[in-house]
Amino acid sequence: MKIQVINPNASASMTAMLAQQCQAIINPGTELQVRCLPDSVASIEGACDGVQAAYHLLDAVRQGEAEGVQGYIIACFDDTGLDAARELASGPVLGIGEAAMHAASMLSVRYSVLTTLPRSIHIIERNMRSYGVDRRCAGVHAADIPVLSLESDPGSYGRLRKLGKQLLEQDRSECLVMGCAGMAQWAKALQNDLGVPVIDGVQVALKWVEGLVQLGLGSSKLISYQAPRLK
Amino acid sequence: MKIQVINPNASASMTAMLAQQCQAIINPGTELQVRCLPDSVASIEGACDGVQAAYHLLDAVRQGEAEGVQGYIIACFDDTGLDAARELASGPVLGIGEAAMHAASMLSVRYSVLTTLPRSIHIIERNMRSYGVDRRCAGVHAADIPVLSLESDPGSYGRLRKLGKQLLEQDRSECLVMGCAGMAQWAKALQNDLGVPVIDGVQVALKWVEGLVQLGLGSSKLISYQAPRLK
Amino acid sequence: MKIQVINPNASASMTAMLAQQCQAIINPGTELQVRCLPDSVASIEGACDGVQAAYHLLDAVRQGEAEGVQGYIIACFDDTGLDAARELASGPVLGIGEAAMHAASMLSVRYSVLTTLPRSIHIIERNMRSYGVDRRCAGVHAADIPVLSLESDPGSYGRLRKLGKQLLEQDRSECLVMGCAGMAQWAKALQNDLGVPVIDGVQVALKWVEGLVQLGLGSSKLISYQAPRLK
Amino acid sequence: MKIQVINPNASASMTAMLAQQCQAIINPGTELQVRCLPDSVASIEGACDGVQAAYHLLDAVRQGEAEGVQGYIIACFDDTGLDAARELASGPVLGIGEAAMHAASMLSVRYSVLTTLPRSIHIIERNMRSYGVDRRCAGVHAADIPVLSLESDPGSYGRLRKLGKQLLEQDRSECLVMGCAGMAQWAKALQNDLGVPVIDGVQVALKWVEGLVQLGLGSSKLISYQAPRLK
Amino acid sequence: MKIQVINPNASASMTAMLAQQCQAIINPGTELQVRCLPDSVASIEGACDGVQAAYHLLDAVRQGEAEGVQGYIIACFDDTGLDAARELASGPVLGIGEAAMHAASMLSVRYSVLTTLPRSIHIIERNMRSYGVDRRCAGVHAADIPVLSLESDPGSYGRLRKLGKQLLEQDRSECLVMGCAGMAQWAKALQNDLGVPVIDGVQVALKWVEGLVQLGLGSSKLISYQAPRLK
Amino acid sequence: MKIQVINPNASASMTAMLAQQCQAIINPGTELQVRCLPDSVASIEGACDGVQAAYHLLDAVRQGEAEGVQGYIIACFDDTGLDAARELASGPVLGIGEAAMHAASMLSVRYSVLTTLPRSIHIIERNMRSYGVDRRCAGVHAADIPVLSLESDPGSYGRLRKLGKQLLEQDRSECLVMGCAGMAQWAKALQNDLGVPVIDGVQVALKWVEGLVQLGLGSSKLISYQAPRLK
Repeated sequence: MKIQVINPNASASMTAMLAQQCQAIINPGTELQVRCLPDSVASIEGACDGVQAAYHLLDAVRQGEAEGVQGYIIACFDDTGLDAARELASGPVLGIGEAAMHAASMLSVRYSVLTTLPRSIHIIERNMRSYGVDRRCAGVHAADIPVLSLESDPGSYGRLRKLGKQLLEQDRSECLVMGCAGMAQWAKALQNDLGVPVIDGVQVALKWVEGLVQLGLGSSKLISYQAPRLK
Repeated sequence: MKIQVINPNASASMTAMLAQQCQAIINPGTELQVRCLPDSVASIEGACDGVQAAYHLLDAVRQGEAEGVQGYIIACFDDTGLDAARELASGPVLGIGEAAMHAASMLSVRYSVLTTLPRSIHIIERNMRSYGVDRRCAGVHAADIPVLSLESDPGSYGRLRKLGKQLLEQDRSECLVMGCAGMAQWAKALQNDLGVPVIDGVQVALKWVEGLVQLGLGSSKLISYQAPRLK
Repeated sequence: MKIQVINPNASASMTAMLAQQCQAIINPGTELQVRCLPDSVASIEGACDGVQAAYHLLDAVRQGEAEGVQGYIIACFDDTGLDAARELASGPVLGIGEAAMHAASMLSVRYSVLTTLPRSIHIIERNMRSYGVDRRCAGVHAADIPVLSLESDPGSYGRLRKLGKQLLEQDRSECLVMGCAGMAQWAKALQNDLGVPVIDGVQVALKWVEGLVQLGLGSSKLISYQAPRLK
Repeated sequence: MKIQVINPNASASMTAMLAQQCQAIINPGTELQVRCLPDSVASIEGACDGVQAAYHLLDAVRQGEAEGVQGYIIACFDDTGLDAARELASGPVLGIGEAAMHAASMLSVRYSVLTTLPRSIHIIERNMRSYGVDRRCAGVHAADIPVLSLESDPGSYGRLRKLGKQLLEQDRSECLVMGCAGMAQWAKALQNDLGVPVIDGVQVALKWVEGLVQLGLGSSKLISYQAPRLK
Repeated sequence: MKIQVINPNASASMTAMLAQQCQAIINPGTELQVRCLPDSVASIEGACDGVQAAYHLLDAVRQGEAEGVQGYIIACFDDTGLDAARELASGPVLGIGEAAMHAASMLSVRYSVLTTLPRSIHIIERNMRSYGVDRRCAGVHAADIPVLSLESDPGSYGRLRKLGKQLLEQDRSECLVMGCAGMAQWAKALQNDLGVPVIDGVQVALKWVEGLVQLGLGSSKLISYQAPRLK
Repeated sequence: MKIQVINPNASASMTAMLAQQCQAIINPGTELQVRCLPDSVASIEGACDGVQAAYHLLDAVRQGEAEGVQGYIIACFDDTGLDAARELASGPVLGIGEAAMHAASMLSVRYSVLTTLPRSIHIIERNMRSYGVDRRCAGVHAADIPVLSLESDPGSYGRLRKLGKQLLEQDRSECLVMGCAGMAQWAKALQNDLGVPVIDGVQVALKWVEGLVQLGLGSSKLISYQAPRLK
């Protein structure tokens, strides 16, 4: 099956990292594309960035459909353009924020999210409320690290580990969700260091989309996710 | 004061109608601009349309800021691009969905929304939940009339009146909210015909923005609505 | 248009302060009355005070109706007697708590309220929940200053400024709501000092009522706000 | 122990009926007072009536305290003046709406309320939300019978029975709550006719207050229910 | 009337303590049985313990029904097996968690719960949400004392008192709920020491069940609490 | 990897059907066990049945752990014993109700559940609320078919199809969730007939557990799902 992971920003190096993570876990029969959007913003930090990224995402999905892609992962924790992508795609589309938080809700009674900048908290919380996954969330926190500094700053992992430990105690949480695609590479190490499940939405979303495609399940096209009307 | 009403679709005739409605109610000192987005979609029906309209809206707000606009009204009931516009604007920005539903919550204990197409219901409901105005909402309903047929189809008003009457009874509602900028012209007539407050968000938002600007109140720029980061 | 601001306690000096604030911001055509209730309690602090104030408020509204008042503002943050006043008035009636918190919900994603005494917190929270404006509220706090000490104690402003700064950080809030009509005079100074929107409900409610009256919008009289039955 | 049941309207005949119901179920050691408020409204239908009734209720509670009353029941389903009474009373104060709906939440997973007039629905729903007992409530309905017609109209019981049966089916409910003190006399008959628990708040509140007084439990006087401040 | 208090663990000494507490407060006509489940777990700490206790509880209720028991109290704060017991019993069944939290909601606007181990918090919170009594709850906390150490450790009371005082301040609470049947004996002393209502669910549930049985009220048997189907 | 599907009732034929469904969709490397609980109830209909099934489920999980099972699926839509199983298992445990409703929340904005008997609705709704998946659920409905009649009655499929069609319209839903493991076999046919995603929790849970195990993710063992304490 043909699966596409879209990193809706323009960062080639983050995309390369994601491709490596994803390639390592796909099923034998999966043909994987991991792409970014060269005309999009360098990183998605806030609503304006999100609007621009979503705009370019639509082209990627239209092209994916033309190429027969059967399932999509949107690799930004804001789930940028998720509903719009569902209007265009025939198969399932999962956002990594969505997937990570649904997974956390099934692996723990109380989880915390650690994202990059404080300005993203509101966006994540609004999504959570729309999905229902706020029910088991004890807090969304920001490490105050810009997205692109995650990989460039050698102290990023240490900072995330320290904050993660603090958050679990402060929130009385039992599970940690990585709130940015750029943190995907550290999920396993962090899980070892913290002793609780640490969830990277990219990996979870990828495995679940594979499963949904295999079962013949995609977005409902009845009303809300109908194809856009031609005008 | 300089106030801008942005109709985020490309319809010149709808914009003309809005301009007429708005011009009739501004305060003496208000300098009003009512504009549409020629490169945007013809009408906003669903998430894909919304992404495209929001993209073009950003340019309009950037230009408005350059021209010294002090307050904005986004004249689409989906409140398309609202948070992004707040990142760019120095003064207040109200969406007409937002304004209409806040007003309905202060004029009644139970209101209903009547919009155009069923596919918009989900978008309105998600906004309602984010704002808190779902608390007094008894239902969001669709007339099943495309946005652009509202003005072209002579039967539109009759259909809205009939549905409005039904909805009030069915929802046990005490107030009706017009769920599309294209319905603005009929609010007064409908209020007379139905005997309950009928709220057009364009007019309410315009008066409230005038008031907020006069009081020196705008969007908080502390965290969530900071200007976009330069990258 | 004839607008009445009712301060539902018996304090003449607070009423004079409010009159000054309000007179400065009304539209040219507005005829403004600002009155208190001489037989009411000296200040409204808790439910018993509220019951007594509401009782005397009814007479004021009945008299206002006889005099052709077209819109009312109830200038107590508890929104004392709000629903009862709506049963009697033909035009719109806004409480200042209600107006301030609706405004805060449209100017920020997260606001805090600072009121006078801890015993008022429960009343404000119950109102918030009824209106829906708890959705974006991060906390209701008390300065532990009795209402009438606000003006008599020269240290009041300093205390509010200090607490306001603390609350914004502690609540991760982006907007501050003044939780008592007696704080109206300090909103602008506090906004300058804190760097976020600081909302005084008296001023917002006044401007919004002017707007609603101009648009011909008042409380729905269909069911819940019908005139009292004669028995 | 000394227990007072206050019917906060002026109806002597409804009070006599309540006295009969209550006298039949008190514990041996209970000294019972059942009183109405002669200066109050004839019946409580809406917010204005409620404000007036609450005003006169305060005097009754102050007098009760002087006479050593140890627990109170407010026999109006709107729980008129409940929080104010708690500020004045040293012992527990239960409203019958409150008691009935808490009981229904412990005897069923889904209950419906049947009250008198549609205008009372909003008041009951706001109380429910404040208490938390909306969680298991499937609907609040009005029989469209004014309070005082309940006893004067010989068809009242038949109408309640018919509506009760309909509501249980329509709401998929498993328990019925009588939404007016004036319906107290019919609870047992209705329970037999409908085959589900039918709850009269007067009786439940009376037994529970007896229990709370025996256990030495009353309203917390720490913050929200402190005695009114002297000014 | 015949009332049964079931302590669903196997602890004879805790049961003896409960029997003493209960015997002291029953009505003259009440025939009281207080029993534990010898084949159950030693104490209920978490979901596995709960499943085992609930299993043995069913036998106790079946036997109670055979003996003509008219009302039941389940004396574990988790309300272990509550719904299952209601399917079997003809009369009312109250859990002590349920009863205590409903009582707290009628005696205060904001209460806190103090239970034994952190692992029980999730169970209590889920119950709260199902009943609706989370609305007025400010926090559920654990003393980190295993159930059986409550009576064996002489320092237990001192620890509860200290924590109780802290929690009231930290949660801004006005009432304390004892979150374990094993704390029943200390409610009165703690109430004196803390100056707020301290609620032991065993005693409240017992008095309320007596009241409900007297009024002829039991669980609805219409749908959810029907007797188990024979297969 | 070793995965176990536990049907927590005693029905061998339903288990055989499930085994067939599951075997068809596992990954190449998965070693699958599908088992029922011979000492459990014949089917799980209500809370008493659930208590008994959960009791026997614990033994199955303990045995599974001894055999090195790495992930579990509880194949009853009530998610019987889910939290208890998580205390015992080292790997992930998903209930099929949970998995189906989380999937529906990612494939549609509004879904409906169709279960067997009305008495199960309350159980499902309580679970939904605990998980958060009630947010996008428009209704839980019962076909009024006992679990074991599903396979024995040849009219079952026709009835489900008819009801499913009705429910989608009535609830304005866009996705249907099969509310019983015994309906697993019909998901695909129903999806074809209804034109919306029809979700069988058994298949979704199985694919997701495979994915979680592959990624090294299991239940958090920090607090709520710790192993039971030895006493």
